[in-house]
This record gives sequence, C-alpha cells and structure tokens, in this order.
Amino acid sequence: MNTPSTPRLYHIPLSPYCRKVRLVLGEKRIDVELVEERWWEAGSEILRRNPAGKIPVLRMDGRLWSESQAIVEYLDETHPNPALMPDTPAGRHEVRRLCAWFDDKFNEEVTRPILSERVWKKVMKAGYPDSRLVKSGLRAVKEHIDYLGSLLDERKWLAGNALTLADFTAAAHLSCLDYISDVDWDRSNSLKDWYATVKSRPAFRSVLADQVSGLAPAPHYAELDF
Amino acid sequence: MNTPSTPRLYHIPLSPYCRKVRLVLGEKRIDVELVEERWWEAGSEILRRNPAGKIPVLRMDGRLWSESQAIVEYLDETHPNPALMPDTPAGRHEVRRLCAWFDDKFNEEVTRPILSERVWKKVMKAGYPDSRLVKSGLRAVKEHIDYLGSLLDERKWLAGNALTLADFTAAAHLSCLDYISDVDWDRSNSLKDWYATVKSRPAFRSVLADQVSGLAPAPHYAELDF
Repeated sequence: MNTPSTPRLYHIPLSPYCRKVRLVLGEKRIDVELVEERWWEAGSEILRRNPAGKIPVLRMDGRLWSESQAIVEYLDETHPNPALMPDTPAGRHEVRRLCAWFDDKFNEEVTRPILSERVWKKVMKAGYPDSRLVKSGLRAVKEHIDYLGSLLDERKWLAGNALTLADFTAAAHLSCLDYISDVDWDRSNSLKDWYATVKSRPAFRSVLADQVSGLAPAPHYAELDF
Repeated sequence: MNTPSTPRLYHIPLSPYCRKVRLVLGEKRIDVELVEERWWEAGSEILRRNPAGKIPVLRMDGRLWSESQAIVEYLDETHPNPALMPDTPAGRHEVRRLCAWFDDKFNEEVTRPILSERVWKKVMKAGYPDSRLVKSGLRAVKEHIDYLGSLLDERKWLAGNALTLADFTAAAHLSCLDYISDVDWDRSNSLKDWYATVKSRPAFRSVLADQVSGLAPAPHYAELDF
C-alpha cells in the first residue's frame, strides 16, 4: 500500500550523476524534494538501503531507484512528455553512447580527478589536492572540448537534432566543472553556444542555485549570458 | 550504398565488455566474424575510428557501433527475438541497474584489478602483478558473490524471472575471472547453479573456446558440469 507522495532525491550538489537526474526530473516537470546526503559525515541510512552504496537514490512510485542512467531511462519511459530519447534504435544508441562517454570516459579522465582533488578533499577535510591529478584532468578536458565541439559543428544537440538525455548528462558533468571555473569555453564556440542554450532551460535553475559551503562558485557560474 | 555482409566484432578474448556483446549476438543467433584486436601491439586502425579509443567495436548494418551497453540495447531493439529486456519500465530499470553494477562497480572493485594484474600485465609484457591489487579484488569478489547469491535465492534469473541482458553482463565478467579460476563457486549454490545454466547456453560456446596464448584456462573453465 503506497500513497502517492512527492518524489525525494537523495543527492549531493556537485555530483554529476545526481545533477543528471535532477536535470531530467526538472525537464519533465516532476516536482522533487532534494535531500542532501553528506554520507561521509555520519552513518547514512539511505546508502545502507542501496546495496551499491552510491547516490543518487530516488524515492518515487513507492520504491527506491538507483544508478543514474537506469533512473533517467525509467523517467523517460514513464514520463514521455517531453521525450528525451529519439524514436529510432540508431538514435537511441547514439544517446546511450554519449551518456556512457561522459559517465565513464569523461568522468575517469576529467570530472573525477578534478573534483576529487579540488572539491571533495576540501569538503571532506581529506587533505590537500594532488596537482598532478588536477593537471592531467585539465589536459584531458581540452581534447574532450575539441571532440564535443566537432560534434556540435554538425548537430544542433549533442546526439542529433533533438534535445536528449545525452545533453543533460554532458551538462551535468560540465556544470560541476564550471562551478569551479575549469572549462575553457572560448576553445569552442559551438560548445559554448550549446551550453548557454542548455543552461537557460528552466530545469537548470536549481542546479545554478547550488552553493557548496566553503566553496563559492565561479563568478560566471549562474550567468545565462557568460 | 552498403551491401549486407556478416557483422564483424573487433574484440579481445578476456574483455568482459567484448564478451557481453558476443554473448548477446550468440543468444540472438546473429552470425558474427570475430577479429582479435591486439591494440597494444601496433597501431590499431579500428581504435582510431572509435573516438573513445575502446573495444568492442561492432561493424554491422553499414556502420561502426561502440560502447557495449549501448550496443546490446541496440541489438535487443533491432533483433527482438528472443527479447532480453522485460516489458515493464521497472523491469528494464532493474536490468540496467544490474548491468551498471557489473560494468561499473564490479569492474572497478574486481574485474579490472584482478585481470589487469594477472592477465594484461603478462599478455602485454608490462611487468609483474601487484599482489595488493589482486588481494583487494579477491576480497571484494566475496561480497559480490554474497549479494548475487542473495538475489538468486529469490529469483530464477538475476533481474527477475526471465533471462535478460543483466545475466549476460554478469556472466561476461564472471567468465573472465573463471578463466583464471578466481571465482569461489562453492560460496553460493544459487550463484553456481545460475552460472551452470547460463554457461550451457549455445551462446556461450565461443566464449568457452577462448584461448589466450601463454595463459591456459583453469581446468574446469569449459566444463558445463563443474
């Protein structure tokens, strides 16, 4: 017996995986209560209930849902308006390829090394940043910007001519880096234009309002005309 | 102008991601030509053509396809017989959650540390195994076996009552470890029974015939009654 209630998302502000789910919930106009889960500070009840021990965890439709890509595909299937997946198998493959690009490759080469050194060590009081990791992330982000720019020179959105889960996955990662000013937007005009468009969607408002205590966002972070 | 031709999979034998695609191709009775891509030995033409620089890469329907999860979802959508995804959004979420469990968490904690130290360093002539990494992988695999066993105590297949992509993803990782005898099957009877059932499917034949030069498989590796 489950009574309908407002969905609740257990998250932390600068996690690209949490942001991806927040952006998709926002785009589909699903109201959600955000609960910050600082799992490193005390025993986390919600992490004990996700065997993978990870956030985001979404409480919705009477259940707990985990794994960000599996969650956003579920949301897209159950709330198809607006659709964030193309209607052909090849189109869906391209979206999933790009989601994996960000969640695996970009995360391993860029998001994780930069955020873990510049943000998480500070927030979790876990020592000083390792500058080699930061530099390696900053080197890698340039190649990624060039690749994404080359896609966007030929496409309106990342995976083709419609806004999809791939755009929100990419924006989730890039917006975390942009909070600490680690994206050189001048390197690709087409990427910069795309990001300005994504950033101006209503779904982005909550993400742009994030404040991590002790770590102010870069001055341009919340500006729509940056 | 593309003429229909036999699909070709660029792969290496002990990669769980390549095996996952091979198993799904096999289950759907799609003939495929396997091309071993020892990308570390010489310039690899096919890796240059996948911007992510990874295998597997599948040449099929006149195009190149990359990212194993995106590929198997594409195969399931375009070759729906037999279906390897459930017909409800919640059922599909569970399959995708478990695929991510293996491809992210299990890979990071188990498959990658063990295979990189015990297999890839040897095959690529890249030094001696780091025993700390191997031990950490062998410790982690026990917890995973317990979790999977607890799922299979209540379900016929990993994600529910039907064979899905989750079973082949799990079997892809476990079979790589089983080649070098690093799975303690006696720890869970339900996991052992499940693996025996998956292993006996025709799709598994090509995987059980794999031979990595200089590295003989464990004696029970190809036995269906192990």
